[in-house]
Amino acid sequence: MSFNSFGHLLRFSSFGESHGQVIGGMLDGVPPNIDLSESDIQPFLDKRRPAQSRFTTQRKEPDKVKLLSGIYQGKTTGTPIAFIIGNQDSRSQDYTEIAKQYRPGHADYTYEAKYGIRDPRGGGRSSARETAIRVAAGAVARKVLTTQYPMIQIVGGLMMMGEKKLSEPYDFKATYQNPLFMPCADEKTCSLWQDYLDRIRKDGDSVGAMVEIRALHVPPGWGAPIYGKLDADLASAMMSINAVKSVEIGDGVRVANLSGAKNADEMRMRGGHPVFLSNHAGGILGGISSGADIIVRFAVKPTSSILTPRRTIDNSGNEIDIVTKGRHDPCVGIRAVPVGEAMMALVLADHYLRHRGQCGEL
Amino acid sequence: MSFNSFGHLLRFSSFGESHGQVIGGMLDGVPPNIDLSESDIQPFLDKRRPAQSRFTTQRKEPDKVKLLSGIYQGKTTGTPIAFIIGNQDSRSQDYTEIAKQYRPGHADYTYEAKYGIRDPRGGGRSSARETAIRVAAGAVARKVLTTQYPMIQIVGGLMMMGEKKLSEPYDFKATYQNPLFMPCADEKTCSLWQDYLDRIRKDGDSVGAMVEIRALHVPPGWGAPIYGKLDADLASAMMSINAVKSVEIGDGVRVANLSGAKNADEMRMRGGHPVFLSNHAGGILGGISSGADIIVRFAVKPTSSILTPRRTIDNSGNEIDIVTKGRHDPCVGIRAVPVGEAMMALVLADHYLRHRGQCGEL
Amino acid sequence: MSFNSFGHLLRFSSFGESHGQVIGGMLDGVPPNIDLSESDIQPFLDKRRPAQSRFTTQRKEPDKVKLLSGIYQGKTTGTPIAFIIGNQDSRSQDYTEIAKQYRPGHADYTYEAKYGIRDPRGGGRSSARETAIRVAAGAVARKVLTTQYPMIQIVGGLMMMGEKKLSEPYDFKATYQNPLFMPCADEKTCSLWQDYLDRIRKDGDSVGAMVEIRALHVPPGWGAPIYGKLDADLASAMMSINAVKSVEIGDGVRVANLSGAKNADEMRMRGGHPVFLSNHAGGILGGISSGADIIVRFAVKPTSSILTPRRTIDNSGNEIDIVTKGRHDPCVGIRAVPVGEAMMALVLADHYLRHRGQCGEL
Amino acid sequence: MSFNSFGHLLRFSSFGESHGQVIGGMLDGVPPNIDLSESDIQPFLDKRRPAQSRFTTQRKEPDKVKLLSGIYQGKTTGTPIAFIIGNQDSRSQDYTEIAKQYRPGHADYTYEAKYGIRDPRGGGRSSARETAIRVAAGAVARKVLTTQYPMIQIVGGLMMMGEKKLSEPYDFKATYQNPLFMPCADEKTCSLWQDYLDRIRKDGDSVGAMVEIRALHVPPGWGAPIYGKLDADLASAMMSINAVKSVEIGDGVRVANLSGAKNADEMRMRGGHPVFLSNHAGGILGGISSGADIIVRFAVKPTSSILTPRRTIDNSGNEIDIVTKGRHDPCVGIRAVPVGEAMMALVLADHYLRHRGQCGEL
Repeated sequence: MSFNSFGHLLRFSSFGESHGQVIGGMLDGVPPNIDLSESDIQPFLDKRRPAQSRFTTQRKEPDKVKLLSGIYQGKTTGTPIAFIIGNQDSRSQDYTEIAKQYRPGHADYTYEAKYGIRDPRGGGRSSARETAIRVAAGAVARKVLTTQYPMIQIVGGLMMMGEKKLSEPYDFKATYQNPLFMPCADEKTCSLWQDYLDRIRKDGDSVGAMVEIRALHVPPGWGAPIYGKLDADLASAMMSINAVKSVEIGDGVRVANLSGAKNADEMRMRGGHPVFLSNHAGGILGGISSGADIIVRFAVKPTSSILTPRRTIDNSGNEIDIVTKGRHDPCVGIRAVPVGEAMMALVLADHYLRHRGQCGEL
Repeated sequence: MSFNSFGHLLRFSSFGESHGQVIGGMLDGVPPNIDLSESDIQPFLDKRRPAQSRFTTQRKEPDKVKLLSGIYQGKTTGTPIAFIIGNQDSRSQDYTEIAKQYRPGHADYTYEAKYGIRDPRGGGRSSARETAIRVAAGAVARKVLTTQYPMIQIVGGLMMMGEKKLSEPYDFKATYQNPLFMPCADEKTCSLWQDYLDRIRKDGDSVGAMVEIRALHVPPGWGAPIYGKLDADLASAMMSINAVKSVEIGDGVRVANLSGAKNADEMRMRGGHPVFLSNHAGGILGGISSGADIIVRFAVKPTSSILTPRRTIDNSGNEIDIVTKGRHDPCVGIRAVPVGEAMMALVLADHYLRHRGQCGEL
Repeated sequence: MSFNSFGHLLRFSSFGESHGQVIGGMLDGVPPNIDLSESDIQPFLDKRRPAQSRFTTQRKEPDKVKLLSGIYQGKTTGTPIAFIIGNQDSRSQDYTEIAKQYRPGHADYTYEAKYGIRDPRGGGRSSARETAIRVAAGAVARKVLTTQYPMIQIVGGLMMMGEKKLSEPYDFKATYQNPLFMPCADEKTCSLWQDYLDRIRKDGDSVGAMVEIRALHVPPGWGAPIYGKLDADLASAMMSINAVKSVEIGDGVRVANLSGAKNADEMRMRGGHPVFLSNHAGGILGGISSGADIIVRFAVKPTSSILTPRRTIDNSGNEIDIVTKGRHDPCVGIRAVPVGEAMMALVLADHYLRHRGQCGEL
Repeated sequence: MSFNSFGHLLRFSSFGESHGQVIGGMLDGVPPNIDLSESDIQPFLDKRRPAQSRFTTQRKEPDKVKLLSGIYQGKTTGTPIAFIIGNQDSRSQDYTEIAKQYRPGHADYTYEAKYGIRDPRGGGRSSARETAIRVAAGAVARKVLTTQYPMIQIVGGLMMMGEKKLSEPYDFKATYQNPLFMPCADEKTCSLWQDYLDRIRKDGDSVGAMVEIRALHVPPGWGAPIYGKLDADLASAMMSINAVKSVEIGDGVRVANLSGAKNADEMRMRGGHPVFLSNHAGGILGGISSGADIIVRFAVKPTSSILTPRRTIDNSGNEIDIVTKGRHDPCVGIRAVPVGEAMMALVLADHYLRHRGQCGEL
């Protein structure tokens, strides 16, 4: 029920604002006796960390995670694991003006409509800075999954950006080898996309993107009818990421054009095991994992903070024009890749524990 | 946490199988003193009811809802409102064979992987028959909303089906005037779509569709960061509908192609009130309603039950071919329209109450 | 969060009023493949059923449970198990007067203060008739427990009533052999208590009672810090039973008088297993089961409906005197015994599944 | 569902261990625009702070609370309020031995049975140190209540300890004027109780206690049937406090001895308002507040850490004797007073918001 919590048996809660002293969170329900230290978490934060290339905000944050509880002698104890990340590069600028204006595409107007108050410093609670904490929690969720199922892998990449689109198959091993987090090992393609984004960046504009996240080797049987469906929870998880405007499972929007004959994922036995001959369903049938790769895709809108002047109003009802200065990602879709992976890990780990609770160990 | 419940302050739970004696549900947290009788619910069930045209299953179900609790002298009392709908036309066929086979695209294999048992009669719990109960609950949720906010309207329609696509603006008043639930008053267009679906139906095939649901005149301020976002809950709600494979808010997947300058919904004052000059965001910013129309779209996969033989396996690991006989909708997207409207109503009513709880009456 | 639901992984929801057509409920999260039929539930309802002796209300209700969902070929399928019990003997009297008056000790005034409306027929939703549904759910919870842990037993009895008090040890095998549900095989004692209650009944008065419920052979490790403690959940469960005003674990209120030296349950090894040499703690330490008997006790206030005139007001603010006619138990504590057992079973089964979810099968 | 969270619309989560770097928590769902700073919280922590008298543990902790989020310019923003308290005086002793032994009355054995691992430093997560965080959260909950209902007061006191018992009426204004937190202004009585506890303390023993908490001027209508009852939530809240073994509402265990005629709280009009002429019910009828004082009482067992040797086992199954050295309260009931008040505030504030959500502002 909590507004700032997510998940059920494995439950993640987060707190903090963009320019507060820290952002933080706690993960409750983690199984005991799992090896865990900050070094299990930091590599994932390092991927999402800003200012690593010219394509992300130049805000300098080391994003060092600090574990506060739930660990004893390097192992989880089954009690809540809390962690914080310091905010170091929050500029002490004057927010008097920005506090009055509603930036188009941002949550300024809606927060004020809801609460009658908002923290304007760097977007406050609505800033994508919060997603760093999700990445930290997702790293723990991965440990929960892989401790029991070492084969499970969670991969992702940015496969579309503005007018650019990668064609399949994607090479997810290459994702973190290039600054746009493209699942593509071809340097020329990567270079072309970077040139494209450079032009947008220099124009003071921004661009949208599409991200795909996959979970490989997930056992069949996770998820549950009717309102605890694995795809419904994934949809909620991905849609909760800042700037996301769509979530697709498997063929997603394309199923609207398909015939039943083409959409059916036929089955055969291979090596004594059931296999699907295609994966239009994206690994989920009736809300339950099928054993095929789980495929989720989401669209990220272009960063709302741009240098092009836009028409808006202020909180006194004056019509004004606004230019959003400050440090921003020209394409927030890039850093949404590790965040999407983290959300996939959190949803799967929760459903693993819920499944084990109701149905027992496989 | 419950697998078969949905919502928070307004919480809906459902039970029942396709060929059980009844399907049913209960809605908890309904405000007291709202006028409510079966006649408030039945018209919505009548829209979703099968066998009203040749384009839906020929299973004959009167779908008469019966209220069991929570009402006194025609008014809600604040206690749970339970309701059931009888299953009358569940054929007493022999399920011995079908119980062994995994129909492609259905949840047969995954239910068995999860539970080690499944009810094969008409799809059991995974049948879309369960959505009738959602429609009943949605009708109550509409009363909750409109008792306090009479201006709120929830409309929808099927605006894409296979190779056919309606162009905007849609005419939602026309939706229930044609058997495909198209938001289109043009008889010729409607006729062409019906011819198209007739061909598919006669071929024993099926086709996917896209449905759009809108909520008009929702006040700004509903929804909540970070994991109680209005769009995240809508994504979960729509994805939980049988056969849905995508959920989009506002421009949805198209934002991947947009620039920041084009995506921004600029604001101006009109008649002393803030207005948005466009609605790429689909009425939601930062997870909170903005006062603009809330726009949700979802793709429905083609019915998996088709007459074309498909390859599959049985539960002994034998490779077989299967043809799914029985009564089925050639396009399940049609009847997903009233279901989608119901889910919109449920999500909004829950968020209205949650908002009122935390922030007080507007 | 739901007001009318209870539990987490195993979640029970109930609906219905005293004089509605039915009372009902659903139990979600039941593990699959458990043998279950109405004959597993009916014996427990038969114990709680009214009008079996002169010491309970003379309302005649067969209390036949009817399963509506979640079972296939005699086994649970993992989907919600819904059930209803008909209300047959709800008298069609005139409630015009009673609807205006606030009966002391009843929820009339508070329901109206909360909702501005109430169903006055037989107490509506606040009637103890709702507890029949708990007993049905508890019977299913027992199956969940004993399928995996056949040794677990849940027993109880009324061990105090007005000025009467049984001394330990109790003989729980005898509980359902006498009409007062006393854990006592001594016929003379039982007879004396019945005489005592007869006098109260004939005076048109009522009397309070104390009930003890025990769970035997529960494995250590169920429950969880800090707000999911087994004793906290038991406290909530028992306090939710109509007319209950206290809940004690183990020594309960008596610990206020004890010294630390006396209160400590010392441990020794017996047959290679840890045992506690006493059980002041009532089988729970730090919110987690210890393997010792779980002991819960609760006080039930005397029935508020009595023939002695009491001063009250009506909903127009008039001061009146009231005599509550109708059919009532002179000691509601009696039939609280099977209800308390049911709540114990529900709490334990939920914690068993939650424990299995987080920590795996023992 | 979370194990370490409590409440619904107002939801409190806590983390941290006795000898970790910090203990902390977050409170989600706080209404916006409430004045809040650390100075609203610190006075309540100062009451509970250890080492203020010879009757509490000599562990020196300043218990300074630090707010991490959810506040802007001195006002709540509606986003999560997180706070931490440093652990400064956690002694760096050797826990090798204690880590192997199960101290009677403590949660050592059960934590290990559940998780297969435990943090032995100062009791880890099972230490009463966690209650400091509840007191901080309770202070915020008081602000939520009194901002809207300035008349509401939450008071409490220790009214029984071992063989000592205060007689009514209690003088709650005196509670924090004496080191035992007795609601008693009589210095002689206070002095006698202190002498009594001194003797116990010097003997290396400990003693149990009884604490009463009251909430005054709570409006009628808060709470909800059937599983969201105000008294059921209070029972859970109080039972979750370390060492608590009973919870009573109003007359509590005494109702077992009462007749219906005596137990009825009659009503009359006074100054145009309904009043109850007695308060056996403790301000709650049918799970909903009646407007009378809400009265909750709980028994706290004697501190389990005593100098008298007790028999126990270690985790290798050896039978040993144990003496629990270290710094401990001879009567943990004393400091349970501010903790009980905090839990009362949290439950009431949650129910206030839930009531407002479902039923609207009064």
